[in-house]
Amino acid sequence: MTRASDRTEMQERILETADRLFYGQGIRAVGVDTIAAEIGISKRTLYNYFPSKDELIVAYLSRRLRPAPPSDLPPVQQILGAFDRLERTFASSVFRGCPFVNAVAELKEPNHAANRIALAFKEQRRLWFRDLLQRLEVDDADTLAMQLQILVDGAIAAALVRGDPKIAATARAAAGVLLEAAGVKLPARRREK
Amino acid sequence: MTRASDRTEMQERILETADRLFYGQGIRAVGVDTIAAEIGISKRTLYNYFPSKDELIVAYLSRRLRPAPPSDLPPVQQILGAFDRLERTFASSVFRGCPFVNAVAELKEPNHAANRIALAFKEQRRLWFRDLLQRLEVDDADTLAMQLQILVDGAIAAALVRGDPKIAATARAAAGVLLEAAGVKLPARRREK
Repeated sequence: MTRASDRTEMQERILETADRLFYGQGIRAVGVDTIAAEIGISKRTLYNYFPSKDELIVAYLSRRLRPAPPSDLPPVQQILGAFDRLERTFASSVFRGCPFVNAVAELKEPNHAANRIALAFKEQRRLWFRDLLQRLEVDDADTLAMQLQILVDGAIAAALVRGDPKIAATARAAAGVLLEAAGVKLPARRREK
Repeated sequence: MTRASDRTEMQERILETADRLFYGQGIRAVGVDTIAAEIGISKRTLYNYFPSKDELIVAYLSRRLRPAPPSDLPPVQQILGAFDRLERTFASSVFRGCPFVNAVAELKEPNHAANRIALAFKEQRRLWFRDLLQRLEVDDADTLAMQLQILVDGAIAAALVRGDPKIAATARAAAGVLLEAAGVKLPARRREK
């Protein structure tokens, strides 16, 4: 094994641990010491990979900045499918809300790089909705995409506070009403699941 | 001035300071020391009023658990007015998201009393919507009230990340579509504001 791959491996191990602890316990609540101790390395070694906690926070969020999974399904099913995925996320025992919104809310530092990553993520998801809506030839795809994103973010906040995964289905139904009002024909709702 | 009113006054002063710092900088980020120092009292004096940080957190959130302002306006205008109020909130320089959702997201302690207060607040607001929807004789007031609450929570999260107060108007428009789909007649949109 080369030194470079050793380095990549340790970096990934730090990031995995930071992800679990930052997301699970909070960015403010978890110190760099705790992350290093969890891995069994010194704080100094960790700083070798990430020179500051802020850089580790940024790397943690950047690693979660993944595009929505590609799909060959018709656009309307992809849009509604995003809410079905949410329901599965909410039902997970590790669900603690949106990592990006949480970071902005916890840090409360207007100039922190984390804010730009959070905005990039939300914008990425809004544009994903917008592209699908444009394929559906919706008039004001920009506004409707933002409204669908608001439903997603609202469902996440509500599920966090209420601990009820069914919130996703309630948001999905609202998304269906907005789509129909924009002239989109919805697929017949499947009965079995 | 009696001792009892002195006590009430100091208690309120602690709560005002805790509110400003907890909401503005974060529950995890701000220690009891900082709050005491800001007022110019000892930590010991503060503990005389609030024996633990957790109790101070609970008192901070309970103090924000205020019902929606009473109104004589028609129900539909009250519902849409909630989104207009949001827009003013988002435009404030002290806006940092929903204090209740933030508390749940920051604490990440499933058994913390703060979670129950956050749930009580969200439920209070949902029931406020539901009562208004029942007056409008909407079929499934329960679901629609939850959907309106999801739009509120989503607008708050989106405004926090995007720093754009106009998100409230986008959510308001979505609320209008949901209301119309439920058979509610919307007031003619005023042009001047």
